[in-house]
Amino acid sequence: MNNKPIGVFDSGLGGLTAVKEIINVLPNEDIIYFGDTARVPYGSRSSETIIKYAKQDISFLKSFDIKIILAACGTVSSVALPEIPCDKVRVVGVVEPAAIAAVKATKNKKIAVLGTKGTIDSKAYETEIKKLMPDAKITSIACPMFVHLVENGYSEHEATYLIAKEYLKQVIDNGADTVILGCTHYPMLKKVISKVLGENVSLIDVGKAAANYLKEILDTENKLSELKKPSYEFYVSDAKGGFEDLAKLFLKRDLGALKSVDIDKIKED
Amino acid sequence: MNNKPIGVFDSGLGGLTAVKEIINVLPNEDIIYFGDTARVPYGSRSSETIIKYAKQDISFLKSFDIKIILAACGTVSSVALPEIPCDKVRVVGVVEPAAIAAVKATKNKKIAVLGTKGTIDSKAYETEIKKLMPDAKITSIACPMFVHLVENGYSEHEATYLIAKEYLKQVIDNGADTVILGCTHYPMLKKVISKVLGENVSLIDVGKAAANYLKEILDTENKLSELKKPSYEFYVSDAKGGFEDLAKLFLKRDLGALKSVDIDKIKED
Repeated sequence: MNNKPIGVFDSGLGGLTAVKEIINVLPNEDIIYFGDTARVPYGSRSSETIIKYAKQDISFLKSFDIKIILAACGTVSSVALPEIPCDKVRVVGVVEPAAIAAVKATKNKKIAVLGTKGTIDSKAYETEIKKLMPDAKITSIACPMFVHLVENGYSEHEATYLIAKEYLKQVIDNGADTVILGCTHYPMLKKVISKVLGENVSLIDVGKAAANYLKEILDTENKLSELKKPSYEFYVSDAKGGFEDLAKLFLKRDLGALKSVDIDKIKED
Repeated sequence: MNNKPIGVFDSGLGGLTAVKEIINVLPNEDIIYFGDTARVPYGSRSSETIIKYAKQDISFLKSFDIKIILAACGTVSSVALPEIPCDKVRVVGVVEPAAIAAVKATKNKKIAVLGTKGTIDSKAYETEIKKLMPDAKITSIACPMFVHLVENGYSEHEATYLIAKEYLKQVIDNGADTVILGCTHYPMLKKVISKVLGENVSLIDVGKAAANYLKEILDTENKLSELKKPSYEFYVSDAKGGFEDLAKLFLKRDLGALKSVDIDKIKED
């Protein structure tokens, strides 16, 4: 038993979709969340910048006494985590859990990965899937507009459908039966994506896969909490809140006021 | 005569549309450009964060021996400049020149302003127009998707048209004959915006208005350069280049390699 909190971070608030899933499968855990809203989005930035930002985000979470960290961000998991050395506090990403879930779900061994430009360029999901299923046929598509469409309330808009149809054409052409939604924003687009791909294609939600993976790790390592009334704290890096509406969209519940931190003052380890 | 360079900065690369206009009207000037690509976009961030970032951008440009600075960013001009004290090097924004141009252009005294959320919330354009034309009727619309659509190559896409039709409905309803494109990205959407509003509505390009304004100031203050072969330098804050294609889109010419600077190491004055 270990009642220390789980740390979760993301470039912004999309990672709250993962928090929602963690609360579902691990209802007795304290959670501390950090969203780097002063520098969101990460997906189109260079690897150097993404790694630098991720290190600062991790350092901030380590300033609390936590037991494990989830990088609930496809871009950080793909681009930065492979470059960040192991340390006392384990940092888990969304790539491995999603790859495991996709390999379990596929019947025709044709898997597609949707992600930000950084995620797709890194080939991280491809590498992880190939480890588990060397003969998998993988189609990888960068979908840079998806995050903006979600954040601006266009999740079910006709414009999103038009853009999704173009992004997903190759997925249909290549006959994938399983699609990894490789960014924590994308579950908000499930309706539109299913409309384009048809109902028979399995959509892998990275937040859900990561939450199940976290549960497995904590259970195996005998580190599950037994808190009856766990607490949730939410930090953002922009100077002011004002993100409550967007946060509610992802978390599907009220989360009270967000606390601000000055990420420039966080020193990397 | 003053052969020192003009400094221009923007949250990202949209400000290059203003550089293009400066090169047109002031062909004998050296220009140093800074785009804060590691933290773009500013438009949806809090005032505190926008002001902090703008101060760092200005400090970076001041590290060169320049004669004047243009904040070629609607958000910075609206939100940050009113909060930044005057100093030896004058900092000019895009709001005043655009307001002057709009007041000159309108016949029915109905003006619309399109901008980022930060720009519209600040009411900066409204305030400036009211100074010049107190009985003007002003419609202000935040268009947060426009920057993303331009940056991702959707400037003339059907999805952009659908989104623009919704943003601009109120402009049509209110009968504005003049529309300020209050963000340096928006001139890339002129075709779509004209298609929605009709050809008779005047579109005010803030970059063009600011370039003309700069010329007037430098001329009046006797500070024009007389360089036969002026030089242009382009800096970005993201660790790596890779922005050349996007830069070319805005500048309509090749600009060679972009140089990287670490904005975290720039101290505010």
